[in-house]
Amino acid sequence: MEKGSLLYEGKAKQIYATDQEDVILVSYKDSATAFNGEKKAQLEGKGRLNNEISSLIFLKLKELNIPSHFIEQISDHEQLVKHVSIIPLEVVTRNAAAGSLAKRFGFEEGEAFDQPIVEFYFKDDELGDPLLTEDHIQMLKVASKEEVAEMKKQALAINEALLSLFANMEIDLIDFKVEFGKDKHGAILLADEISPDTCRLWDKKTNRKLDKDIFRRDLGDLIGAYKEVLNRLGGNQHV
Amino acid sequence: MEKGSLLYEGKAKQIYATDQEDVILVSYKDSATAFNGEKKAQLEGKGRLNNEISSLIFLKLKELNIPSHFIEQISDHEQLVKHVSIIPLEVVTRNAAAGSLAKRFGFEEGEAFDQPIVEFYFKDDELGDPLLTEDHIQMLKVASKEEVAEMKKQALAINEALLSLFANMEIDLIDFKVEFGKDKHGAILLADEISPDTCRLWDKKTNRKLDKDIFRRDLGDLIGAYKEVLNRLGGNQHV
Ligand SMILES: Nc1ncnc2c1ncn2[C@@H]1O[C@H](COP(=O)(O)OP(=O)(O)OP(=O)(O)O)[C@@H](O)[C@H]1O
Ligand SMILES: Nc1ncnc2c1ncn2[C@@H]1O[C@H](COP(=O)(O)OP(=O)(O)OP(=O)(O)O)[C@@H](O)[C@H]1O
Ligand SMILES: [Mg+2]
Ligand SMILES: [Mg+2]
Repeated sequence: MEKGSLLYEGKAKQIYATDQEDVILVSYKDSATAFNGEKKAQLEGKGRLNNEISSLIFLKLKELNIPSHFIEQISDHEQLVKHVSIIPLEVVTRNAAAGSLAKRFGFEEGEAFDQPIVEFYFKDDELGDPLLTEDHIQMLKVASKEEVAEMKKQALAINEALLSLFANMEIDLIDFKVEFGKDKHGAILLADEISPDTCRLWDKKTNRKLDKDIFRRDLGDLIGAYKEVLNRLGGNQHV
Repeated sequence: MEKGSLLYEGKAKQIYATDQEDVILVSYKDSATAFNGEKKAQLEGKGRLNNEISSLIFLKLKELNIPSHFIEQISDHEQLVKHVSIIPLEVVTRNAAAGSLAKRFGFEEGEAFDQPIVEFYFKDDELGDPLLTEDHIQMLKVASKEEVAEMKKQALAINEALLSLFANMEIDLIDFKVEFGKDKHGAILLADEISPDTCRLWDKKTNRKLDKDIFRRDLGDLIGAYKEVLNRLGGNQHV
């Protein structure tokens, strides 16, 4: 597999072409960003940790019959994935209140819901990623009703899988964000990454945060926490 | 009908008990407020105009087989309505972009949608009336899925009726907000008011605003515009 030209550089990852048309190479960066890029830092080892964690999670999801764009990890900070056409939605699934939702509704962080909640945010940095209702999604012509229903169904299935995966690691999955894309047949496929950058992960016993909130809220050693997550996943300890 | 004790004083109306248990008296006030009560003024005649307009609109909706809490207008600024248990949602139906939606998605004001959009906002001044998705409504236990579907259906039917009503008056209905309540049998009934305080009404020829945006944005003579709306509705000219 040849690493081709840089197709896109995001805040957390670079995307490269490969010699296969429908395969891209994702290279995880060491940068941490929050609040729509307003807060930034370089954290050595973060790219590698997220690459290892995300690869392991996609592999474990596959074992649970949940497909994704993931093909294989090819180096400490790189993975190959299927090239899809990303649907510009951030799909957030929540098991308990935290972050913007806790603030929006005056909930205590950690208050559990009876049912998981799925939210759609418009991936548009200029508009500040606004929350969307299903009518808004139709209005913006971002996805059809059937596609929204399919994404919601997949998000809830991913949630069930991740809940049990993390429960086995003594971690509470508070919420997580995924992106979906369409493959060349129009099928909706889980894409992007699943890592402590995109999940809220709380240690079951102590409620200690093991995710990007450490960076957002200056709570201490982010790299240590991400290493802890990788260890509990049974991942490569040499990082 | 005896006017009983004051049950509630809102920003725009007072609610009184009557000698009938399931009937309340709504008294429209001359106050104008905007931005969650931050901007305020007393505008002589406004209460009377909104009472007359809202009464006429509820009557015309009834002719179009759209039921509401409205019973009868009993004085220039008072009407009798059925007492319902208000569902704490502001149900906003939009035919074209304006106000918060235009800002949220970077639309030009007046840009028409292919389909009307129905939005639900949580009636909670302290939280700033946040936009809700259907999952949020379930989470907050504000209404069941069936009730949300019923409100949406009614809102769209009200919209069709109001669109033709206002079109006959050479007015474009851009958007409007309603509230629903449950009667003693649990049936969902259109309540509160429908007036230039709760609708965006643009003169078809000139796009001149004939609604509360005149107050929100200091665009001139609000009372004159509300009189114009009442006149075009065929209402009582002596105000
Ligand atoms: N399988 C895929 N095919 C094509 N693009 C993908 C795939 N998976 C993820 N992407 C996209 O690759 C980019 C990854 O970069 P990164 O996560 O750093 O972006 P970002 O800074 O979050 O910005 P944004 O997501 O708003 O573009 C994202 O745009 C993401 O949507
Ligand atoms: N049929 C009805 N039965 C009971 N309450 C009603 C009915 N129709 C309207 N209401 C309620 O009466 C009040 C009318 O007052 P007003 O519109 O001035 O309130 P407000 O300042 O908008 O504040 P809020 O709506 O947040 O209470 C509202 O609380 C409204 O929900
Ligand atoms: Mg990203
Ligand atoms: Mg009101």
